[in-house]
Amino acid sequence: MRALISVSDKEGIVEFAKGLVELGWEVISTGGTHKMLNENGVKALEVAEVTKSPEMFEGRVKTLHPKIHGGILHKRDDAAHVAQAKENAVEGIDLVCVNLYPFKQTTIRTDDFDEIIENIDIGGPAMVRSAAKNFKDVLIVTDVLDYDEILVRLREKRDDIEFRRSLMIKAYEHTAAYDSMIANYMNDRFNGGFGASKFIVGNKVFDTRYGENPHQKGALYEFEYFFSNNFRALKGEASFNNLTDINGALMLATSFNEAPAVAIIKHANPCGFAVKSNLLESYVEALKCDPVSAYGGVVAINGTLDKELAQKINEIYVEVIIAANVDKDALAVFESKKRIKIFTQDNKFLVRANDKYDFKRVDGGFVYQERDDVKDAELENMKLMSKRAASKAELSDADVAWKVAALTKSNCVVYVKDSAVVAIGMGMTSRVDAARAAVAKAKDMGINLNGCTLASEAFFPFRDSIDIAHKVGVKCIVEPGGSIRDDEVIEAANEYGMALYFTGIRHFLH
Amino acid sequence: MRALISVSDKEGIVEFAKGLVELGWEVISTGGTHKMLNENGVKALEVAEVTKSPEMFEGRVKTLHPKIHGGILHKRDDAAHVAQAKENAVEGIDLVCVNLYPFKQTTIRTDDFDEIIENIDIGGPAMVRSAAKNFKDVLIVTDVLDYDEILVRLREKRDDIEFRRSLMIKAYEHTAAYDSMIANYMNDRFNGGFGASKFIVGNKVFDTRYGENPHQKGALYEFEYFFSNNFRALKGEASFNNLTDINGALMLATSFNEAPAVAIIKHANPCGFAVKSNLLESYVEALKCDPVSAYGGVVAINGTLDKELAQKINEIYVEVIIAANVDKDALAVFESKKRIKIFTQDNKFLVRANDKYDFKRVDGGFVYQERDDVKDAELENMKLMSKRAASKAELSDADVAWKVAALTKSNCVVYVKDSAVVAIGMGMTSRVDAARAAVAKAKDMGINLNGCTLASEAFFPFRDSIDIAHKVGVKCIVEPGGSIRDDEVIEAANEYGMALYFTGIRHFLH
Repeated sequence: MRALISVSDKEGIVEFAKGLVELGWEVISTGGTHKMLNENGVKALEVAEVTKSPEMFEGRVKTLHPKIHGGILHKRDDAAHVAQAKENAVEGIDLVCVNLYPFKQTTIRTDDFDEIIENIDIGGPAMVRSAAKNFKDVLIVTDVLDYDEILVRLREKRDDIEFRRSLMIKAYEHTAAYDSMIANYMNDRFNGGFGASKFIVGNKVFDTRYGENPHQKGALYEFEYFFSNNFRALKGEASFNNLTDINGALMLATSFNEAPAVAIIKHANPCGFAVKSNLLESYVEALKCDPVSAYGGVVAINGTLDKELAQKINEIYVEVIIAANVDKDALAVFESKKRIKIFTQDNKFLVRANDKYDFKRVDGGFVYQERDDVKDAELENMKLMSKRAASKAELSDADVAWKVAALTKSNCVVYVKDSAVVAIGMGMTSRVDAARAAVAKAKDMGINLNGCTLASEAFFPFRDSIDIAHKVGVKCIVEPGGSIRDDEVIEAANEYGMALYFTGIRHFLH
Repeated sequence: MRALISVSDKEGIVEFAKGLVELGWEVISTGGTHKMLNENGVKALEVAEVTKSPEMFEGRVKTLHPKIHGGILHKRDDAAHVAQAKENAVEGIDLVCVNLYPFKQTTIRTDDFDEIIENIDIGGPAMVRSAAKNFKDVLIVTDVLDYDEILVRLREKRDDIEFRRSLMIKAYEHTAAYDSMIANYMNDRFNGGFGASKFIVGNKVFDTRYGENPHQKGALYEFEYFFSNNFRALKGEASFNNLTDINGALMLATSFNEAPAVAIIKHANPCGFAVKSNLLESYVEALKCDPVSAYGGVVAINGTLDKELAQKINEIYVEVIIAANVDKDALAVFESKKRIKIFTQDNKFLVRANDKYDFKRVDGGFVYQERDDVKDAELENMKLMSKRAASKAELSDADVAWKVAALTKSNCVVYVKDSAVVAIGMGMTSRVDAARAAVAKAKDMGINLNGCTLASEAFFPFRDSIDIAHKVGVKCIVEPGGSIRDDEVIEAANEYGMALYFTGIRHFLH
């Protein structure tokens, strides 16, 4: 049996090759791999010795040869193939171990286009694809993590068709991901990110028990190991809907960088948020906004969940806690609670992946866009439109209200007092309905909105929402502006002595 | 100059090759392509004549040869490369025209795995990738639609680097899409659709003016030509937000197959829906639910927009109309209205793509699931839980309410009377809030809810929503059931003489 080994990432390759040789395999390899194997006492043939053809053009052409691809591709159970192989002195290659030139790492390291182009592997993918096509006869090894299992299976003669097929699928995933990365890179570089084709490629983190509903299958896929590196279950398992809620909560809780923010999400919408001087205080204030909805909700904590905070949270039933870190004695607080789920990022503060792009499925395709992001400069550069300017406290509340509004489903309005959301209306087809719903809810909760600051993620089309705001005592408003009735809104603000600011930037979120 | 032509899809290839020969090019080709060219009077060399190596293993190995790949890959501006090419009798190949074995079509035609595997192209992608890597020196042609332009540019010596680069990007898109398709197919076949990697691949239909907000770039991408075949702008251009709203409207309007349904969407949520005996009547009834929100909304019409309906719609401002078909004199009605946008599918009735899967971005990746779908059997098999059974009219309304609820953002409640939505509450963190908001809105609109039917896409956790429903005269309720307080809900229904049905199936939509 013959194995062809040609790897860019050489981790574990000596041990793997040694294992193969011990099992009686002959090894063929190329340039750098061959050198490394020889230096480590693994006898290996050079590919050029097999092809009788020199390596050409600085390695651009090495393995693209009938002796190699014929050796991989001929069917061992087809008499004509076998005869033809013999006739043409093509010897079988029964295992191909290849990983590809580090295209991605090269693009991270340099902008030099010639160097990047040189790191597009040609021979590697061709061998991977050939071997995968003939997976019945050839083991195709593209993952360092599979080396041990392959040796064990070969030793125990358990390299059965199901196993070979799984390696084949992995191989095509490997080449598909490689070329997707190249195509996306080229479109990012030359077509502003919006080329003729778009490849969204994810690697499975885990299957969820089901999808959005029990009759749907579902799973979480990640880019660049974000979840593998930043998501660990301490208690319970995340459902499909938990994951989208956790995402919303995470975005909110990280919107003030390292500040001790706490966000509460229910059904993908915020029902509580505060950023006070410590996490306990933030949680207590966040909960006040809508403790009814918080029941069964998701709480994100931008810092360490300690025992005291855990005991406080444990007073009601929340379904999910995601915290940057969780103290052992905090985890113990929930020991007897079967239904609560606790996740951590194992970081000091919660982190975002900060994907460059955003997308949404529509039937028959998807819409793709640059990710929305609220920049600090938006509030620094906002324009005072009213006679009265905001106080320092109001400006601070405006910052909170604006960032929360940008992360809440449109149409939304967010009322903030002392760095805590005190009322919120969202996901409505009309802005004034959102304003009204928020106020009605606050009234139900016995919350006094007097002196609070209001933000809207898009302009107020009429003064009606301002009238409602005034009635409950709103003193400061921040919104993008841009309505044909801005004058009416400004007039209303002046009439009520409110401070009114326009940011000029809209944050629809649907 | 030499061109290598090896195509599976032979459309236009004879004319293209003739054009190259006329420009003084020498043509090399393989098997079927060679035969076709020769039969049509285009002189072409066989690849085997160039490689002096026979085609082997039923065509599995033809072009995987240093003479071919060296001919493609050596750098023409590198003296060492050129010398090495000469030394090894490698002649330059300056254009590669390849399209790949029809893997997709094969999987549609047959389930025979050997035949499917045989239709994984190996030599083709290797040549495409080689030529793309050396795009400075080699034109890589993978799209039939480019043949004419390439001939023109060669004739006029305008095959400049920008053009060559655009062909290179297209080439990697081509191979990336091909292997993505293979990997997804294998995972669908062997891993129930949820394999280790998932490739979501879209082709751009058009750029939108911007994304969800003006500071974001955006575009629409499609699978399988759904929009190319089923979406045409008659007036105006679709914005990013229009597209997601149109999607929502389309789903609703097609939920009763070919029935004359009309749906109105605003900010991704239904604010009107009816399925009456004709489209005009459906529109009139759909509009009654919330004419305020309908202002600036999206209207989907499951049939032909005729003049009478156009005049009716023209009485208010809607931003978007999507209709299966649009009469000329209907289009004329909107001639003077600058802001309205009109789109058609050019079909008799609106059609869905009915994607098998659904996905949503979360920061750092995406969640992926089987698409949700409301089956007619759900209502046929629902269980009567109350003493009183529904009347025929109530059952018909239950059907409408249930389907609309399944397509409305959770938590939602939908009130239906005479096949028209009369009140709707959605996107709320609490179900009773949705029930309350819907009733308040109906009151504002002067709508009498007496005798209507109510649906909820997930169970009622308490009897409170039933109490609210009773107060406004709801007589029939359909919901999944499954709450620990179902008894309380059933008791309330019986107390009020309502008909109550459980479907056993939930339709959360977030």
